Amino acid sequence: MADTAVTMDKIVSLAKRRGFVFQSSEIYGGLSGAWDYGPQGIELKNRIARFWWKEMTQLHDNIVGIDAAILMHPKVWHASGHVENFTDPLVDCKKCKARFRADQIPPEDLAAKKCPECGGELTEVRKFNLMFKTTLGPVEDESGLVYLRPETAQGIYVNFKNVQQSNRMKIPFGIAQIGKAFRNEIVTKNFIFRTCEFEQMEMQFFVKPGTDAEWFEYWREQRWNYYKKLGIDMKKLRWHRHGPDELAHYAKDAYDIEFEFPMGFKELEGVHNRSDYDLSRHQQFSGKDMQYIDQDNGNERYIPNIIETSAGLTRQLLMLLCDAYEEQKVADKGNEDDWRTVMHFHPELAPITVAVLPLMKKDGLAELAQDIRAELKEDFVTDYDQSGAIGRRYRRQDEVGTPFCVTIDYQTKEDGTVTVRDRDSMLQERLPRARIAEYIRQKIKEYKRPSAGL
Amino acid sequence: MADTAVTMDKIVSLAKRRGFVFQSSEIYGGLSGAWDYGPQGIELKNRIARFWWKEMTQLHDNIVGIDAAILMHPKVWHASGHVENFTDPLVDCKKCKARFRADQIPPEDLAAKKCPECGGELTEVRKFNLMFKTTLGPVEDESGLVYLRPETAQGIYVNFKNVQQSNRMKIPFGIAQIGKAFRNEIVTKNFIFRTCEFEQMEMQFFVKPGTDAEWFEYWREQRWNYYKKLGIDMKKLRWHRHGPDELAHYAKDAYDIEFEFPMGFKELEGVHNRSDYDLSRHQQFSGKDMQYIDQDNGNERYIPNIIETSAGLTRQLLMLLCDAYEEQKVADKGNEDDWRTVMHFHPELAPITVAVLPLMKKDGLAELAQDIRAELKEDFVTDYDQSGAIGRRYRRQDEVGTPFCVTIDYQTKEDGTVTVRDRDSMLQERLPRARIAEYIRQKIKEYKRPSAGL
Repeated sequence: MADTAVTMDKIVSLAKRRGFVFQSSEIYGGLSGAWDYGPQGIELKNRIARFWWKEMTQLHDNIVGIDAAILMHPKVWHASGHVENFTDPLVDCKKCKARFRADQIPPEDLAAKKCPECGGELTEVRKFNLMFKTTLGPVEDESGLVYLRPETAQGIYVNFKNVQQSNRMKIPFGIAQIGKAFRNEIVTKNFIFRTCEFEQMEMQFFVKPGTDAEWFEYWREQRWNYYKKLGIDMKKLRWHRHGPDELAHYAKDAYDIEFEFPMGFKELEGVHNRSDYDLSRHQQFSGKDMQYIDQDNGNERYIPNIIETSAGLTRQLLMLLCDAYEEQKVADKGNEDDWRTVMHFHPELAPITVAVLPLMKKDGLAELAQDIRAELKEDFVTDYDQSGAIGRRYRRQDEVGTPFCVTIDYQTKEDGTVTVRDRDSMLQERLPRARIAEYIRQKIKEYKRPSAGL
Repeated sequence: MADTAVTMDKIVSLAKRRGFVFQSSEIYGGLSGAWDYGPQGIELKNRIARFWWKEMTQLHDNIVGIDAAILMHPKVWHASGHVENFTDPLVDCKKCKARFRADQIPPEDLAAKKCPECGGELTEVRKFNLMFKTTLGPVEDESGLVYLRPETAQGIYVNFKNVQQSNRMKIPFGIAQIGKAFRNEIVTKNFIFRTCEFEQMEMQFFVKPGTDAEWFEYWREQRWNYYKKLGIDMKKLRWHRHGPDELAHYAKDAYDIEFEFPMGFKELEGVHNRSDYDLSRHQQFSGKDMQYIDQDNGNERYIPNIIETSAGLTRQLLMLLCDAYEEQKVADKGNEDDWRTVMHFHPELAPITVAVLPLMKKDGLAELAQDIRAELKEDFVTDYDQSGAIGRRYRRQDEVGTPFCVTIDYQTKEDGTVTVRDRDSMLQERLPRARIAEYIRQKIKEYKRPSAGL
């Protein structure tokens, strides 16, 4: 019997073969910690981003978006504490030149200054700041030093007043943002799980002090339900509450949502009660008043508390690849061809919604199929494939997770009907071509995650 | 009579006041060359990006997308020529320390090495590379030197083979990408027109050598029509063909589409015939075969020619702000209140599609309005505003370009009808609440740019 377990190797291989994720600058040997998203990868990423954005802003009355620059004033990172504290402890082996995070080698080796790989002598532990530095302006000195933001959150905090005033927001309200962040990670690993360049989807919710515990619970529940709506297997999710030794110095309370990746349970998203730390620090460092004035309550003034929901966009993409992946025996003829690899993405998230396939190239079927594709492409992301046996073409669409395959055959020429094949059940239904779009929309609305197999 | 001319000052002021664009890190005095997009700015930017993406990928059979990393292998920039050639000539005044681009001071001053500001002595001209540098990994030396990409195009070229093979593309085909790029500009100016951090929307179309001139014309026409679909005033657009002194060394032919901004005609987008320069250089520098194998033509091999369409996303946003802006006299009562500022965005691009406004807060009108908003928000980006006189609320929505205002009044309580106010004509129609969504969709479909006033 074949081993159908989902492994990272299988995910990496499919991701490359089917155009989801490529090694960055691959023709030059790749660049550590960066990845490129291929045609299917960017469609999937865009759909996750839109789903989150709609959920957090459009459907929520009191949340608006922003998009702050990656390059920010360097004082921001003094105020946030990153210049001082965003460091990893590093040691080097003087003999074999290997480099380690001091907290990741055996304590006895660290104490003895002994290299865990070659036994050579280790250097003293030094702090290494994870922020990428660059220089703004033509003079390469400290005067132009700026950082690539290591998190998107600060872009929201420094814009708190501008957003509140321009959009006349009343507390409680939130600001949402999707954007890139950069961390000079010593050890990047697990494919796109931990990388130097990544994308965050963060929402910072500003509340009146004293109401923070209540809103913290509200957002924990909201964020848990989000993953249900994404259609993933909820048995693979769990909460992890930060213990006293894990809590950041500014945090009153913090929970992670963890997903069971092939390498084990790992953090997907954090929900944090950040108290009034962030706005207080920016008030202190900028000298600007960051208080909210409650005009409905006698102009009461206070620095809001912040509840943060911080998710990784590229991490959710990896989650979806892992969650959707299945190797499935599709018939019992005892040969290898009877297996398929299928990606069970929610049809709203699938990179390609509908593939149009003529049974044959000849006899006008290809032209007919192209004609039908043209009708569908205003409403859906479509693919067209006319080469190879139809079974093989279905398998290719299964591997990118296309939920619907429309097949054009000789009967289409006669009576204008097509078959629509369902990715999960592999069942085909015959319907008039004029009804395809409506049929697909209805199927997407009714979609239930298949229970068998996954 | 008031001066209703569109000026950059008016645009910058409205952009800040109404939450389109804020100065980056404003509470710390701002950061030169970077801007933050507020709630209305990011909605507008997202809509432009989606419009371009759909136009270029979903509606075009032979174009797929990618999303390459900002950090790329440094050899990419040697191959592209950026390390050697992407420089500005700089001079400094030894006396007043002012810095100039050598090509932007009077030639006689440059020849005399005389500062155009204080008359002091100028330094020799030196080349200043516009790429931002940073260091990947913990050792700050040349070994980890990487650049922030100064253009997105190279991310497409290095992925040519991966995309072609994973998606089995046949020439002619295109690869589209939207993403950030960074240039250490000495002089940033004109608000978000020229900035250090910006976003590009590029499509690289790979064609058989010999067919490039034909495809170049095809894409010039396509790109011109794109701006028609965006609904902007086509009288403000013009072509500028690069003369022999302007053509990049790799370019066989190049046209810019220019828009008439308040500061004059400026480049919006370039359509370039880049010959086989890019893939040839990457083949040479990487040692990897970048030839396309034409399986339909006896496995003929060649390095494709590239037609590039390169547009600025943030520049299109500035274009839309300038094009949509109008100060309009709305009545003739001889007082200032009879003027309004209105943003005539295409309703598909407007940041907020529909605002729901109860005539009064009391008598259950506010609850009724919130109820109607809840019905609309699944389909549209909505706003809700209950404070101040109704006329003032209409003016606020006019300033962010909201095409539809739904007003809930006492008659709504009686017969369930609402009024829908059109932003451009200011006319109101009364209709049953159940018909609002359908009415708005129909109006968006039928939208014509208003001819009067603009």
